[in-house]
Amino acid sequence: MKRAIGVCYYPEHWDPEIWTEDARRMADAGIEFVRIGEFAWSRMEPEPGSYQFEWLDVAIRTLGEAGLKVVLGTPTATPPRWMLQRHPDMLAVDAQGRKRGFGSRRHYDFSHEGYKAECGRIVTELAKRYGANPHIAAWQTDNEYGCHDTVLSWSSAARDAFRQWLRLRYPGAGNDGDINALNEAWGNVFWSMEYRDFDEIDLPNLTVTEPNPSHSLDFRRFSSDQVVAFNRVQTEIIRQYSSAPIAHNYMGKVTEFDHFAVGADLDIASWDSYPLGFLEDRIEASDDYKRRFARQGDADFQAFHHDLYRAVGRGRMWVMEQQPGPVNWAPYNPFPAPGMVRLWAWEAFAHGAEVVSYFRWRQAPMAQEQMHAGLLRPDSSEAPGLAEAARVAREIADAPNVSVGQAPVAIVFDYDADFAWTTQPQGRGLDYFWLVFDFYKALRSLSQSIDILMPSVRDFSGYELVVVPGMMHMPADLKATLAESDASVLVGPRSACRDASMRIPVPLPPALPGLDVTVARVETLRADMPVPLAGGGTIGRYVEALEGSADVMEKTEKGEAVLMAATNLHYLGGWPDQQAARRILANLLSARGVKTELLPGGLRVRDTPDERFWFNYADEEVELNGRVFPPCSVTIDNERRRR
Amino acid sequence: MKRAIGVCYYPEHWDPEIWTEDARRMADAGIEFVRIGEFAWSRMEPEPGSYQFEWLDVAIRTLGEAGLKVVLGTPTATPPRWMLQRHPDMLAVDAQGRKRGFGSRRHYDFSHEGYKAECGRIVTELAKRYGANPHIAAWQTDNEYGCHDTVLSWSSAARDAFRQWLRLRYPGAGNDGDINALNEAWGNVFWSMEYRDFDEIDLPNLTVTEPNPSHSLDFRRFSSDQVVAFNRVQTEIIRQYSSAPIAHNYMGKVTEFDHFAVGADLDIASWDSYPLGFLEDRIEASDDYKRRFARQGDADFQAFHHDLYRAVGRGRMWVMEQQPGPVNWAPYNPFPAPGMVRLWAWEAFAHGAEVVSYFRWRQAPMAQEQMHAGLLRPDSSEAPGLAEAARVAREIADAPNVSVGQAPVAIVFDYDADFAWTTQPQGRGLDYFWLVFDFYKALRSLSQSIDILMPSVRDFSGYELVVVPGMMHMPADLKATLAESDASVLVGPRSACRDASMRIPVPLPPALPGLDVTVARVETLRADMPVPLAGGGTIGRYVEALEGSADVMEKTEKGEAVLMAATNLHYLGGWPDQQAARRILANLLSARGVKTELLPGGLRVRDTPDERFWFNYADEEVELNGRVFPPCSVTIDNERRRR
Amino acid sequence: MKRAIGVCYYPEHWDPEIWTEDARRMADAGIEFVRIGEFAWSRMEPEPGSYQFEWLDVAIRTLGEAGLKVVLGTPTATPPRWMLQRHPDMLAVDAQGRKRGFGSRRHYDFSHEGYKAECGRIVTELAKRYGANPHIAAWQTDNEYGCHDTVLSWSSAARDAFRQWLRLRYPGAGNDGDINALNEAWGNVFWSMEYRDFDEIDLPNLTVTEPNPSHSLDFRRFSSDQVVAFNRVQTEIIRQYSSAPIAHNYMGKVTEFDHFAVGADLDIASWDSYPLGFLEDRIEASDDYKRRFARQGDADFQAFHHDLYRAVGRGRMWVMEQQPGPVNWAPYNPFPAPGMVRLWAWEAFAHGAEVVSYFRWRQAPMAQEQMHAGLLRPDSSEAPGLAEAARVAREIADAPNVSVGQAPVAIVFDYDADFAWTTQPQGRGLDYFWLVFDFYKALRSLSQSIDILMPSVRDFSGYELVVVPGMMHMPADLKATLAESDASVLVGPRSACRDASMRIPVPLPPALPGLDVTVARVETLRADMPVPLAGGGTIGRYVEALEGSADVMEKTEKGEAVLMAATNLHYLGGWPDQQAARRILANLLSARGVKTELLPGGLRVRDTPDERFWFNYADEEVELNGRVFPPCSVTIDNERRRR
Repeated sequence: MKRAIGVCYYPEHWDPEIWTEDARRMADAGIEFVRIGEFAWSRMEPEPGSYQFEWLDVAIRTLGEAGLKVVLGTPTATPPRWMLQRHPDMLAVDAQGRKRGFGSRRHYDFSHEGYKAECGRIVTELAKRYGANPHIAAWQTDNEYGCHDTVLSWSSAARDAFRQWLRLRYPGAGNDGDINALNEAWGNVFWSMEYRDFDEIDLPNLTVTEPNPSHSLDFRRFSSDQVVAFNRVQTEIIRQYSSAPIAHNYMGKVTEFDHFAVGADLDIASWDSYPLGFLEDRIEASDDYKRRFARQGDADFQAFHHDLYRAVGRGRMWVMEQQPGPVNWAPYNPFPAPGMVRLWAWEAFAHGAEVVSYFRWRQAPMAQEQMHAGLLRPDSSEAPGLAEAARVAREIADAPNVSVGQAPVAIVFDYDADFAWTTQPQGRGLDYFWLVFDFYKALRSLSQSIDILMPSVRDFSGYELVVVPGMMHMPADLKATLAESDASVLVGPRSACRDASMRIPVPLPPALPGLDVTVARVETLRADMPVPLAGGGTIGRYVEALEGSADVMEKTEKGEAVLMAATNLHYLGGWPDQQAARRILANLLSARGVKTELLPGGLRVRDTPDERFWFNYADEEVELNGRVFPPCSVTIDNERRRR
Repeated sequence: MKRAIGVCYYPEHWDPEIWTEDARRMADAGIEFVRIGEFAWSRMEPEPGSYQFEWLDVAIRTLGEAGLKVVLGTPTATPPRWMLQRHPDMLAVDAQGRKRGFGSRRHYDFSHEGYKAECGRIVTELAKRYGANPHIAAWQTDNEYGCHDTVLSWSSAARDAFRQWLRLRYPGAGNDGDINALNEAWGNVFWSMEYRDFDEIDLPNLTVTEPNPSHSLDFRRFSSDQVVAFNRVQTEIIRQYSSAPIAHNYMGKVTEFDHFAVGADLDIASWDSYPLGFLEDRIEASDDYKRRFARQGDADFQAFHHDLYRAVGRGRMWVMEQQPGPVNWAPYNPFPAPGMVRLWAWEAFAHGAEVVSYFRWRQAPMAQEQMHAGLLRPDSSEAPGLAEAARVAREIADAPNVSVGQAPVAIVFDYDADFAWTTQPQGRGLDYFWLVFDFYKALRSLSQSIDILMPSVRDFSGYELVVVPGMMHMPADLKATLAESDASVLVGPRSACRDASMRIPVPLPPALPGLDVTVARVETLRADMPVPLAGGGTIGRYVEALEGSADVMEKTEKGEAVLMAATNLHYLGGWPDQQAARRILANLLSARGVKTELLPGGLRVRDTPDERFWFNYADEEVELNGRVFPPCSVTIDNERRRR
Repeated sequence: MKRAIGVCYYPEHWDPEIWTEDARRMADAGIEFVRIGEFAWSRMEPEPGSYQFEWLDVAIRTLGEAGLKVVLGTPTATPPRWMLQRHPDMLAVDAQGRKRGFGSRRHYDFSHEGYKAECGRIVTELAKRYGANPHIAAWQTDNEYGCHDTVLSWSSAARDAFRQWLRLRYPGAGNDGDINALNEAWGNVFWSMEYRDFDEIDLPNLTVTEPNPSHSLDFRRFSSDQVVAFNRVQTEIIRQYSSAPIAHNYMGKVTEFDHFAVGADLDIASWDSYPLGFLEDRIEASDDYKRRFARQGDADFQAFHHDLYRAVGRGRMWVMEQQPGPVNWAPYNPFPAPGMVRLWAWEAFAHGAEVVSYFRWRQAPMAQEQMHAGLLRPDSSEAPGLAEAARVAREIADAPNVSVGQAPVAIVFDYDADFAWTTQPQGRGLDYFWLVFDFYKALRSLSQSIDILMPSVRDFSGYELVVVPGMMHMPADLKATLAESDASVLVGPRSACRDASMRIPVPLPPALPGLDVTVARVETLRADMPVPLAGGGTIGRYVEALEGSADVMEKTEKGEAVLMAATNLHYLGGWPDQQAARRILANLLSARGVKTELLPGGLRVRDTPDERFWFNYADEEVELNGRVFPPCSVTIDNERRRR
């Protein structure tokens, strides 16, 4: 499949008289895909049951006749105001008990059956009308599930659905669930929290002190399942009427629902990539780092998500929204450095993206995103991003097709582990996502290409190294498969430390088959109290005391075991800094014959079967082995072919 | 008119037996005005409809017979507890949906018609009884509108009034408003936010993510108008019964309502000046600065407000409450440095104050302000502030009358712009007030006297320089008048960038007649990422990319245009630091023949037609051109007369 | 009485089959006391009125037969879920108006009469059944009153009870109270806050700005009294059926209720000592300090509480819960340094503890405290704390009995003063507890043993020095008794500055008999603006200007009086740093012939009639006068005997 670029377009925002010209300019710039429709419910159905699709017919036809392929979004992220009159209780409720009202977007509760039925209705109308339309190249369900913290709702609809979900999770005779099974699983004897009936269970908010972690974890799992169910209503309807592939546009660092589980109902996983907006949220980055990469973004953040969503899409991955210039929603909203709009696109293609679609065509002069740049300015003249996008379009015309091979290294990413860490951080600032990301960053700064694996994977053939950090619950068959695999395996810290109900298992963790290592104790530390390792670097923040007869491969300066190993299994008892992580990973890779090279500064590399990509995220020249990489640049070698 | 000092007094707090002695001591200290009554509703009307004014009669007579002039406040900022029984829904509601209850003050909703009628009733009683009283020299309506964040209320009373206000703002046939006009003005097609009826519109709080900025801005404008209407009820009644002038006591840095619009119904604008309490709130001041000026306050903050309220009062300005010692409400409450109680008063007189009235006569031993110093201690002995106040009284006896001339420089201050910036800061810490204040500070540190202009001014004759920073919406006739004026005009950053409905206009901003400059893009930056200018100093935080054929007068070190000009118009595309602001302003003034001199440290100067005032805010000697200014001192030259 | 160690145990968490083995291992480790039962209501009464005590009978018998003495807790901190069905309004309400729901613990309102009656009922059942049980050595009422900010509730139950409490505090004819007396006491004429009836009085939350401090203070006193009344229901019942002593387990730095008043109904005051968890909350400690003592805790925090609770228990003091390893609830949860589990126990014994009871026996694998270490790991193997606890058990077998003498120095600690400071801090970060603690720390670093006195003490015989910092209301008879005592007395800062109703008294504070000192003014300052004293060190944050004819013993560098004295009375007008506090205290002690020695680093000393204890909290060797103290060590001299 040929790589392509796209754009997001809102015909309903503009006079129909300029649609044709817009379409022509898109095509001239080399754009192939246009996403439309995902916020237009009030124009599709201005009054309940009164549909108006004529304008959409024209828009699709206009785009299609210009040679553009249309991605049609379902508008369910923005129910019109009249929807609330039909379903006054459809709003989500925040953890403080306040209704989350109308006036922006995503004002709905995933557990509200009435609203879900309305979504089914409008999706049915769309799918019937456009399912066979030749210009429709793909579908998008809803928009950015989880944006604005919308996964968890503390409404009575959520509470009732949670009770029902619990009945199924702790089944008893009949359909009523076994409340004693729940009490046992959650350990409710503690603090007399025992329930006599599922209807006594409330949502785990507004408790006097923190709720039972098993209660919280199950609520997070339930909330995730509600997103899956909500999405599935739409995918099932669309498939009845259309053979076009279905995507959803995920986000960066949203972990409140299981993206793999939603992805199982999709054909393509896409995501919305805004590199600059995440820098200020990177809790422990220095001010200097934030200044240096303010106009480029973190050198690994996008790559991580590309690899993650390639796994979510089981190989098929798009960037549905790509930042084209300064945006409106981050704490600070700088211009991208020249070259970055191109670089970001190529980074996506290097990781297997089929389409990179810029958000948005023309900057809106009104409403919440009026300060969000587009490829055009509000006066229709060209914004700087357009030239870079057009250059990418020209470049991919001569480039190989989408090309992804298996990487030598894999990291397992588990949303359920994120739920567990969020439920029980055990120390200020401890976060599963950033733990995994630190391993990813260390590998990438060692010049590795990486695969991210969903936690249900049981086939590790072809990998030299599999890394499983922080996966608090590791099912027994996963442990067994890893132990039996040909790969070198690095587990920990905080992996395999809970059973499926968030209880500490006995025998104590990690209890990996064939590896005699026990986590005797756990401590959490201030970030400024790192523990030096004998070999250099540190562990810190989350530190485990290890016991057992396995080989000690890393020690603290005081001689305490930090990394222990037997056969192919390694357990790491602490959160390493980059120096330690790189040494440990380099040693493991080296032992398997995988070559690593420490890359300077903002330089990164990515291999596909056909190409080697060099990305320089630094705003200055970088030299490696005598080769010079210009600031904010992409360099593509076709070396694999040459070999 | 002779300058005078005053004091705030609460006869209801003290045994009537000491009133006579208090009055004598006031007169002995040189005090001429006494403000009373503004919190005494529960004593004026202990039970609904049962008035008790005899005590007030005696108090006014006692003060008057001691030669004091009385300023009588309406007590509407403190409705008695019984008022809530009559109007249970009169309380304002905060943005989180919580009622703001009884137990302090300002517990009312500006939109509650029932309470407004009660205010009319008590004001009528007061105006009838005291309107012709010879001791009543002035009136004060209510007290400190906006104090404790009370302008915005999220109640059902506010919601209903907002809907009605919107009907009038977006008028249709009949009285019903044109909902489509509103949808178009707000751009509600974005995210399907379109309304079918005004009654569907809620207040812009508790939305899932930020509400439409047009929605928020209109709510802020509505809320401001409600204050104006509330105040007007009182001024209209008072004028029926009294010819004494009417004042309101505004506050420092309260921008939630349009002070000019309220001022249009007043005869005098007064404000409550507490220099020490604002230092900790000055977000980006260094700790060193906060320490150095902890006992003096910022050297420009009071001057700015004097100039602002002189404009609000169309020339008539008082300080109704002047800090006399340590107060109770700031994060830290230090003693003023010796000399400051005098200095602050003279700064006010230098800017045209007719009266400076100290708050309060005797420190209260009870209730919320028991730690707020008075001129007397709770035991009736003299607090240190009294001697300084009495010195001021002696000094003004020999000084010229109130004297204000037109300054060579003017800054336009626009509350509507503050509403727009607050609605859409676009970057952390960005604030209209501090932007304008930075220009004011730069001018004052260049030895300038400054006029502040309301945004409706269209006559700029007599000014050498008019500065218009951050005025997001500039009406076309203002642009035209400025372009045609004789003054040099400095516009920007972020001026003229929105239409009246908060939409980005096309052609793009600033679209000043005769000045070919376009803001191509906007970025916001961390405060520690300033952009160096070729001429020294920096711009930062809010930075615009300028295009066009106008002359480039300031560039970044990289050569990007920062200040562009044609004819008398200049557009500045960024928030300058003090160094850059001073150079730019000094150049503009120099070009018009206005002399500037950079003043050292805490030294400031202010010219009136009759006097030149030197104020040294530093707690150490300062030398300028061989002349020495003692710490915390006032020096007055009658040099204008000498010329 | 022999010293002893104990442990907290939850038989309901474990299979009864292991109870016997657990009991044997406890006894083998030298444990003598076992606390049980305090969270087991759902097992004692699984359905309303259906009691199941058989398991508890067995548990007590099993423990008793192993030679262990049982402390039986009442389970009222954890009402079962069904309780809420009987009393839907029993939940407390937070200051924001939100119900504090089921799902953890302490989910009840102290003012709810229905719940209090239920507590009486279950306590009656327990007392009847176990009151004469020979294995029951003591009782514990409820658990950790005030934990999770549960003293103050803003419910309608609290509001109604508060009104009734006020009627009794401001009594009138009959039972109705005198509302005018309340209005006068609170100064409600200020801001027209006058009430016509007690039923008009709401709780002091959600007011527009801060409520009247007299209102807030009375609400805090009421809330404290509600805890006393709640506890008394239980003690009165238990005493009917049992002669075993009654304890409650207080906490570290919980000051929301008067521990002395609750203690008056107890036989033993115990507390729960978790040294590591408080370091991050010590607001003004440096990061370096927090790092250095992260594994030991503050060297004075536990000692302070031991001395405080010895006063609360009128001589009888226990540590009911002693940290045995890392816990789960602090911002960071490190391992204790080796030796600290022993050191902490000995520090308690040195201050008169009869029993030090470790929390808990075996780490729970489930629920909220699954990350809280026990003496055993979840797999029943020994955690590191067990060996240290067993060593303590062996050591006390050879040590003297509990032994407490009168110290030469006393500090008065007054919960009511804490209520007043909390109500009116007057400056950011000002806190009564830390003020008192700073004096305590200075004394202890001067090698002193200290008694803490309740504010009702009027017999000061035997003390060389009595320190009364920050006691905002000092009753006249306390002032008189101190003036007449033989002790040297140090009062201030901020002592005696309010009357019983939170009004500033006239004559002005402190008005100590025979000491002509007046606090003329008060200021509060940034922490980085200390005022240097002529003799070294500083005062800061809360600074008073002193007047009067008494001798000036300490001055600022500028010559302002800071410490003034006459006869035995000294008044200190500011918050001293450690250097100033040590000098002032050393001078006062030296004048009375008490020897002081400045201790290095983390070294501390404590004298009993029989022993001198040396504690080194530093994680490194410390030398004093040629004697070397190992890191984290206890050294015991029997020097008193030797003398």
